[in-house]
Amino acid sequence: MANVDKLKKPAVVLLSGGIDSSTTLAVAIDRGFDTIALSFDYGQRHRVELEAARRVAESQKVKRHIVFPLNLAAFGGSALTADISVPKHRDPDRIGHNIPITYVPARNTIFLSIALALAEVIGAATIFIGANAVDYSGYPDCRPEFIDAFETMANLATRSGVEGRKITVAAPLIDQSKAEIIKLGTRLGLDYSLTLSCYDPDADGRACGGCDSCLLRRKGFLEAGILDPTRYAAAPLV
Amino acid sequence: MANVDKLKKPAVVLLSGGIDSSTTLAVAIDRGFDTIALSFDYGQRHRVELEAARRVAESQKVKRHIVFPLNLAAFGGSALTADISVPKHRDPDRIGHNIPITYVPARNTIFLSIALALAEVIGAATIFIGANAVDYSGYPDCRPEFIDAFETMANLATRSGVEGRKITVAAPLIDQSKAEIIKLGTRLGLDYSLTLSCYDPDADGRACGGCDSCLLRRKGFLEAGILDPTRYAAAPLV
Repeated sequence: MANVDKLKKPAVVLLSGGIDSSTTLAVAIDRGFDTIALSFDYGQRHRVELEAARRVAESQKVKRHIVFPLNLAAFGGSALTADISVPKHRDPDRIGHNIPITYVPARNTIFLSIALALAEVIGAATIFIGANAVDYSGYPDCRPEFIDAFETMANLATRSGVEGRKITVAAPLIDQSKAEIIKLGTRLGLDYSLTLSCYDPDADGRACGGCDSCLLRRKGFLEAGILDPTRYAAAPLV
Repeated sequence: MANVDKLKKPAVVLLSGGIDSSTTLAVAIDRGFDTIALSFDYGQRHRVELEAARRVAESQKVKRHIVFPLNLAAFGGSALTADISVPKHRDPDRIGHNIPITYVPARNTIFLSIALALAEVIGAATIFIGANAVDYSGYPDCRPEFIDAFETMANLATRSGVEGRKITVAAPLIDQSKAEIIKLGTRLGLDYSLTLSCYDPDADGRACGGCDSCLLRRKGFLEAGILDPTRYAAAPLV
């Protein structure tokens, strides 16, 4: 693949443009990787997140940012890809305790699989994902046991794995709270005003303030004691 | 997903239009499944195989045939998706002993991941794949250890798996020879003249006769003692 096949220490980083993936990108760069950011135009209702991903990729000076088209909306089955309402203002203490309707079937499996293909083509031994199982929406494919099982499978699936060039799936934020993640990214110079977490933003990219992702984000900034730079479409309820 | 969300015993079947996937479809139907065939328009040079997939899906009376667009050619890295020649007339006894240049990085991982999403959306507990590790090209993602690892991962990745509705990845042909597969499909009434195996067919869908896939196919019909209905672009070398 042009421009990225001669990098010294390449890594593929999944980048949605939210807090976790953007911080993960900053971590990968801090660890000395030449990063290829990979985003997906998958029919998500919050497609404006791709603009956030572009801003973050540019600010972090990635070697290349690829936006891969993938029509998961053809299947539907989620509030993020079908005409189903995104739940708002749920009890924050209940978020993460069951799998909500915003779960997109097999999303991270598909994203990691395509990242795996890209990694193999460009000779990258590491794939970074911002999965987090603390302040999260309760998606099964954000848990450490999933990441581990994917890595095992990936090394059986590929030429790299079979020929002894192990592929690592790195999820450096998996056990951190949102506040810890925000503090880490801030320390690494990440500008969170570039990011977007909301599942249901307006066309202008302003956050709804009420979806699970907005609630977790707001709580994270509060707990971190860092000013929340998010642009909201309406004044917050609390 | 319309038309297929009320099936009694749904299964997703990966269908390329070659011998193995077409036979697997016949097996799934023989086992009483309501089948949704899933093919990929992934930038393969032998894109005409999608016509074969359509013919087979129609003849086997699947409930629905989905052709999913997926631009793996954007990454390249394989003789099937980039401007790299397909090797011809290799020693048949050497085929399968190493990973050839026709290997497409992470292809079956990606195909199974998207099948997993579809399966979860339509409530299918079984995904069929025609993977075969006997008379095969030597791709790592056709081996039983890969299939098993994918299934383990899939049950950690999804709502279905986490909530106890186990997803099974069935590879009924994994340990059969090509001749055994052809005999099985013939017994199940599959018309192999509808199928296409060639990696490098002409625009008219006629097989090259020399790629690994053509060689394995020809050998299979010979060993099965069944007339090979393949249309070749040129007279065979042997």
